[in-house]
Amino acid sequence: MAPSNQKPSIPKGTRDFDAEQVMKRNFLRNTIIGVYEQFGFEPLETPAMEWLATLTGKYGAEGDQLLFRILKNGDYLRKVDKELLAKGKHQELTPYIAEKGLRYDLTVPFARYVAMNHHALPMPYRRYQVQPVWRGDRPQKGRYQEFWQCDADVVGSDSLLHELELVQIYDRVFKALGIKARVRINNRKLLNGVASLVKAHEFFGPICTAIDKMDKIGMEGVEEEFRKIGLTDEQVGELKEVLTLEGPGMLKLNELAERFAEGFIDPAGINEVRDVLGNVLQIGVEHVEVDFDLTLARGLSYYTGTIFEVVATEHDFGSLSGGGRYDNLTGVFGLEGVSGVGISFGLERLFDILEMQGWPIDFSRLGTRAIVMPFEVEGVQRALEVLKVLRDAGVKAELYTELDQKMGKKMKYADKKGIPFAVLIGSKELESGQVGLKDLASGEQQLLDLDALLERVERDQNPDPA
Amino acid sequence: MAPSNQKPSIPKGTRDFDAEQVMKRNFLRNTIIGVYEQFGFEPLETPAMEWLATLTGKYGAEGDQLLFRILKNGDYLRKVDKELLAKGKHQELTPYIAEKGLRYDLTVPFARYVAMNHHALPMPYRRYQVQPVWRGDRPQKGRYQEFWQCDADVVGSDSLLHELELVQIYDRVFKALGIKARVRINNRKLLNGVASLVKAHEFFGPICTAIDKMDKIGMEGVEEEFRKIGLTDEQVGELKEVLTLEGPGMLKLNELAERFAEGFIDPAGINEVRDVLGNVLQIGVEHVEVDFDLTLARGLSYYTGTIFEVVATEHDFGSLSGGGRYDNLTGVFGLEGVSGVGISFGLERLFDILEMQGWPIDFSRLGTRAIVMPFEVEGVQRALEVLKVLRDAGVKAELYTELDQKMGKKMKYADKKGIPFAVLIGSKELESGQVGLKDLASGEQQLLDLDALLERVERDQNPDPA
Repeated sequence: MAPSNQKPSIPKGTRDFDAEQVMKRNFLRNTIIGVYEQFGFEPLETPAMEWLATLTGKYGAEGDQLLFRILKNGDYLRKVDKELLAKGKHQELTPYIAEKGLRYDLTVPFARYVAMNHHALPMPYRRYQVQPVWRGDRPQKGRYQEFWQCDADVVGSDSLLHELELVQIYDRVFKALGIKARVRINNRKLLNGVASLVKAHEFFGPICTAIDKMDKIGMEGVEEEFRKIGLTDEQVGELKEVLTLEGPGMLKLNELAERFAEGFIDPAGINEVRDVLGNVLQIGVEHVEVDFDLTLARGLSYYTGTIFEVVATEHDFGSLSGGGRYDNLTGVFGLEGVSGVGISFGLERLFDILEMQGWPIDFSRLGTRAIVMPFEVEGVQRALEVLKVLRDAGVKAELYTELDQKMGKKMKYADKKGIPFAVLIGSKELESGQVGLKDLASGEQQLLDLDALLERVERDQNPDPA
Repeated sequence: MAPSNQKPSIPKGTRDFDAEQVMKRNFLRNTIIGVYEQFGFEPLETPAMEWLATLTGKYGAEGDQLLFRILKNGDYLRKVDKELLAKGKHQELTPYIAEKGLRYDLTVPFARYVAMNHHALPMPYRRYQVQPVWRGDRPQKGRYQEFWQCDADVVGSDSLLHELELVQIYDRVFKALGIKARVRINNRKLLNGVASLVKAHEFFGPICTAIDKMDKIGMEGVEEEFRKIGLTDEQVGELKEVLTLEGPGMLKLNELAERFAEGFIDPAGINEVRDVLGNVLQIGVEHVEVDFDLTLARGLSYYTGTIFEVVATEHDFGSLSGGGRYDNLTGVFGLEGVSGVGISFGLERLFDILEMQGWPIDFSRLGTRAIVMPFEVEGVQRALEVLKVLRDAGVKAELYTELDQKMGKKMKYADKKGIPFAVLIGSKELESGQVGLKDLASGEQQLLDLDALLERVERDQNPDPA
């Protein structure tokens, strides 16, 4: 490499993750994956790069703008018409110079995969996928250009038992993470019915968009939005009435069912929520709260049935997970009539919550447990023997190679890495055939033979729960 | 999503990985990571996107061409000079329309990270990094545009004990994978000395490049290359003599040492290889062969000391891992004088070898163990109870939701997913309070109560080794 003096940095919205962050992120990933696998979901990994034809048009106009496009390799201008180039219109040029883009979410690659492989897949097909995605959002606190999603979807079945199982998955994940959470459930068909109820079915989309803002702008703000859409005071009033129904979910559903019946409105959405909620009540959940919430709309347009959202009950962190049922996700790729339902966790918010409230496991025991320090070159052979014994027993142990370093600096190194034990090998230890064990926390030091060393270090690694 | 009839596909050189592939790839990743951690290496993850300023100029002209560049978001032509645009020269346009690129390897991002964070890092800093990289190579058998590397490096120490430990890491990794392998060791300084020995020091680079082709073109081909460089017959003859020295590594080193001494040539390279090889012989390795091999050159120009390469001894698969010592990897990012040494495994070749010779573990036991099948809606509640018991006991179990499906199709589904047990819940089972357990392999079926079911499924999952 040519010498230079580049001041190194990384693009805004991207991050390096150090050892502690990786350990914690792995804990989150593995916890979620563990629960997904308990429910029969199988892993899938798709490539970071997809054809732009696969990605564009799937995330709305805003999404298309946020896609990262990859410049063709080689002379990408060779076949570009000179006139087109001279016009300088980026929208016109892009299709000629870029044909691949970075994965924007895990749902579209999943749909693409199912459409490509459905003949070979077991149906219903349950897959989970835990991978990074990339979006050209303006970087800001808590919003990144590279972030991880942890998705589970099942396709090829319209059984509402999958909705129940997804709620059970939420229950086990949040229990394992120690996060108190509420699962909000609603149904797009029910929202559709509500629009019909106030005779504003043609405004179904905008009504959903308005309701979706409830968390941010409150009922009053939503009413304002309704009026902007062009709804009458009467319609706004009736919408407000149903959206602010109080009481247990099943009772709210009964109330709505009566109104729907009076208006001869399709009760499918009500029946579906009843079914899911009834199953949840019957089988029970251990940890999460579960609520029917008519004000849950979810922005994504491909949902057609149940919709889910999870929020923390003790912190104001926004949505920790969302999901729902879609009837035609693969239709755009030529495979019609495949119903599915899925959920997605974002890694970053779970991380932030646990940083705030504390992690359910002690990560300090996962790192290197012992550092072996020969004082002189004569001690190296012995140090390597000690290391072999420790490593063969499954103890993470490292060699301190800087023999000439001062003791203070050696200990500072061990401290920085959070290593609890230093194994010292000086001339005294070499003579006695023992090793010196220094407990870095207490400063205590003792001479031990190898068996006793191993026992001490292992005991610390797996402390007796009693 | 708008309906359409896109025929879905993925870019050439990229791959989807199904459940079995992900499990196998995870086994590889986790085996390598497990060994790295045993030696005190800490994880690091860096972003997929780096500034092009970080990446370009680091991989030679060919590498620069293979970098994937990311188009700026928004109107990337807005600030481009119209004249420049009209010229249609892609090399001139690129810096204006792309400023980020995809990670091409893990070494440069690591060097960038160390340069950015060296004040906060424990030194020597050992890190491992297991992430995908992207290269715009022409896709062909065994060569992909997205593939995974598994790197370990230690920087901030010039102790040759790190070389020894990396050999020990090779030993443990290949033992765990059950792959017979040979670690070839050489040293750039020694090759330097050889060039001096034949008084062709000014041709050091081309000589290395020629030697690097030994595996492909043999000694005769390399001689031809030497002549093309412009070496005399005498020089070529002397090079051939030292390159074809036979016998144990230590003896070859002695022979070279004598020749170097006669020619007043710096013996640093010889001493380093002797040191590493001597340590390896003294501490011993259990599984891999270790060889001093003067014909190992490694293409990468940043190596300055020891170089490593691993090949399978029973298969002709090319290099399974490479590595070496570099004295100034971070210099290009403004941090001088940081010596380091590292190795890198490619996931894909290890995968291919194990596909051929067999994997050391049985993956069939890692998937879903039981599928619970209620025959009618009346059995669902009971099915959910059974599932809870199984899952609480750590058994991966799924619900078959398609109640109306024919038995044959249900069994075919279980078979396709490789699930060994079906738990049947019909009216008979509901009445008796028991469940039907069908062993999918033998076809055997029996009525069991829940305890017995759990015991049977768990016994199959963790078979007694006796």
